Amino acid sequence: MLKLLYICRNFLTDYKMNRTFSLAVALMVFAFAVNAQGHDKRSPIIADDGTVTFKVAAARADSVRLIVDTRVDTLMSRNDGGKWCVTLRDLKPDFYMYHFIVDGMKVLDNDNAHVVRDVKNVMNSFALDPKEDCPMAVHDVPHGKVEAVWYDSPSLGATRRMMVYLPPDYVKGGKRYPVLYLLHGSGGDETVWLEQGRAAQVLDNLIADGVAEPMIVVMPNGNVDEKAVPGMGPDCNVQPTFSHKNWMDGTFEQSFNDIVKWTDKHYRTLADKHHRSIAGLSMGGYHSLYISANQPDDFDYVGLFSAAINRMDEGKSKIYDDLEAKLVKQFERHPKLYWIGIGKDDFLYEHNAKFRALMDKNNLPYTYHESGAGHEWANWRDYLVIFLPMLFK
Amino acid sequence: MLKLLYICRNFLTDYKMNRTFSLAVALMVFAFAVNAQGHDKRSPIIADDGTVTFKVAAARADSVRLIVDTRVDTLMSRNDGGKWCVTLRDLKPDFYMYHFIVDGMKVLDNDNAHVVRDVKNVMNSFALDPKEDCPMAVHDVPHGKVEAVWYDSPSLGATRRMMVYLPPDYVKGGKRYPVLYLLHGSGGDETVWLEQGRAAQVLDNLIADGVAEPMIVVMPNGNVDEKAVPGMGPDCNVQPTFSHKNWMDGTFEQSFNDIVKWTDKHYRTLADKHHRSIAGLSMGGYHSLYISANQPDDFDYVGLFSAAINRMDEGKSKIYDDLEAKLVKQFERHPKLYWIGIGKDDFLYEHNAKFRALMDKNNLPYTYHESGAGHEWANWRDYLVIFLPMLFK
Repeated sequence: MLKLLYICRNFLTDYKMNRTFSLAVALMVFAFAVNAQGHDKRSPIIADDGTVTFKVAAARADSVRLIVDTRVDTLMSRNDGGKWCVTLRDLKPDFYMYHFIVDGMKVLDNDNAHVVRDVKNVMNSFALDPKEDCPMAVHDVPHGKVEAVWYDSPSLGATRRMMVYLPPDYVKGGKRYPVLYLLHGSGGDETVWLEQGRAAQVLDNLIADGVAEPMIVVMPNGNVDEKAVPGMGPDCNVQPTFSHKNWMDGTFEQSFNDIVKWTDKHYRTLADKHHRSIAGLSMGGYHSLYISANQPDDFDYVGLFSAAINRMDEGKSKIYDDLEAKLVKQFERHPKLYWIGIGKDDFLYEHNAKFRALMDKNNLPYTYHESGAGHEWANWRDYLVIFLPMLFK
Repeated sequence: MLKLLYICRNFLTDYKMNRTFSLAVALMVFAFAVNAQGHDKRSPIIADDGTVTFKVAAARADSVRLIVDTRVDTLMSRNDGGKWCVTLRDLKPDFYMYHFIVDGMKVLDNDNAHVVRDVKNVMNSFALDPKEDCPMAVHDVPHGKVEAVWYDSPSLGATRRMMVYLPPDYVKGGKRYPVLYLLHGSGGDETVWLEQGRAAQVLDNLIADGVAEPMIVVMPNGNVDEKAVPGMGPDCNVQPTFSHKNWMDGTFEQSFNDIVKWTDKHYRTLADKHHRSIAGLSMGGYHSLYISANQPDDFDYVGLFSAAINRMDEGKSKIYDDLEAKLVKQFERHPKLYWIGIGKDDFLYEHNAKFRALMDKNNLPYTYHESGAGHEWANWRDYLVIFLPMLFK
């Protein structure tokens, strides 16, 4: 019964259907599904020993490769059944993205419905989590609420979408909460910290463990040319891109107070410097650096995750002028935490080293975290887990 | 500059990278992106005359086909550039899903980052919307808020995820709102009415036009074996499936009051029969039928969208027993609307006809809408647009 059901679905998915055939198959699926209990053919196959096996049916191909993030690129072997296979060992518990290259053409795993997007690149995903305490997985703890809201930005003359995490206790009413503004990179949008970053799961787990303070987390869209993630904005077909007209030119930083004001108006926030944090990855780190430097009275906790500090754009916007003097002024207000994280292999490593030298020269105190690997989500998820417990203490 | 940038990205996406090469390319992309303004290479290409052109690079393939929903299955032609192309004409304004079949293997459009999932089947999507008044597109109107929340279900012994739409005025406070419980089909989950159904956009637009009453819309997960959409639940790798252990066996219907109670506790609802509606597609229509029949004092507006009425499961659960008597009792309370919609080509058409005959036999009044096409989202989006204006009037 199960086997037949599976065959039906392959037909539904992959092969030509005329209307009559389609209806017949749909009816069969419908009827059979009643008795097909717990059918869940997974791909990739994660064994108890932590090995991960990938398979792809490409009967006519001459070569098939598996790409996993920037970490693995390996040839696959054709097995007896005509499928191409490979087994990976020693992957560490984490969330992974992968795809196949079949005779030079990118192909997804048709047996895995889990996909994530990185800028324009759609890939399959899987989680490797043998440890029960992985902070990125969903555990049996109280869950916060995640909202998609539209805020007014008078500076940009636009209504824009952003995501807001509210801690589990928020719905009980009464209490006010500190706020973390969590910013994405150049190719991201308001949803990426929730999807690739697993921010809601990390927050739920760290709050439940008493390691992080209950907080509101606001995730706006840092590309001012976009009103929303592609598909949720006025142009249904727009493609995600690195390149935006008003890209890192000070526009987002200058409009940022619209987000803070809207948040303080619509949520039960603690609306002062001691209860505000701003942090971001790559472009979001650059945004966090300049927003906090230009608004020295607003943020007591700053996080630069692999920040794009290679762009020192004096003259492009007043936001970027006189950074050194602004930093000195910011630190006269004694921010409680200025956190810098970067991977050893990140192409922005040297730029971050130069920035730290500038900080050192002025005796400006910061916390530095150097990890392995480069400019990638594996680091940013880890940085969030390290950063959150230091906030609002 | 733009061309080079594009080449870089192809390398990033599709070809083997060692760490050094990866860093060099990332740096190039980063540097070039600054000046690459408005780069947005779309696929498919939608011309002003409404034609839609699809292209796929599969240099070594012998045959390539394009599949669009259940509506189009066509061979593509190899063009001079080595790509396979086809142009479609006369598609009506709507949202479409598509994929390619390259030598028998399902392949997505690597130039289109828009993907949607239908059960386990991941496909590309595009919107064809030459009319400015398309109710499924994002227009310049006030937007409601969409929340992902976790509710307690004592009946199921679980905390489960559901989506809630709150109308634009909700955040202003004070006012109470009617509630529509909007249910998905057998292969869906709590997110599918928002993704494939475009429910938030439809609600925003119809409320802005004064055509629909401002309302709260609650979208739970109707598969009781799932706590959340795959990827957002405790098992990160679980695959979406039609087949569930507790599938259409009365368990969901019996636990439904947990959802209503949680909603009335956590939102400013109008908590009575006159301000409650329940509607759903396929399995969700079956759920709506039995929940409203078993709770005749709770819902004044019922919507059956292509309902799975082929399953008359007397004896399987007390929920399904004595339907005719229950319906008679339900209609003694004079529900304000009992709406039945079905497509002429739906494999459930005859079952819906039989159900209408049962209604007719007992002189139970209902509103009937018969559309073209079959068991598909093109119909369900339309049904929602027709159904919403009839509620809470």
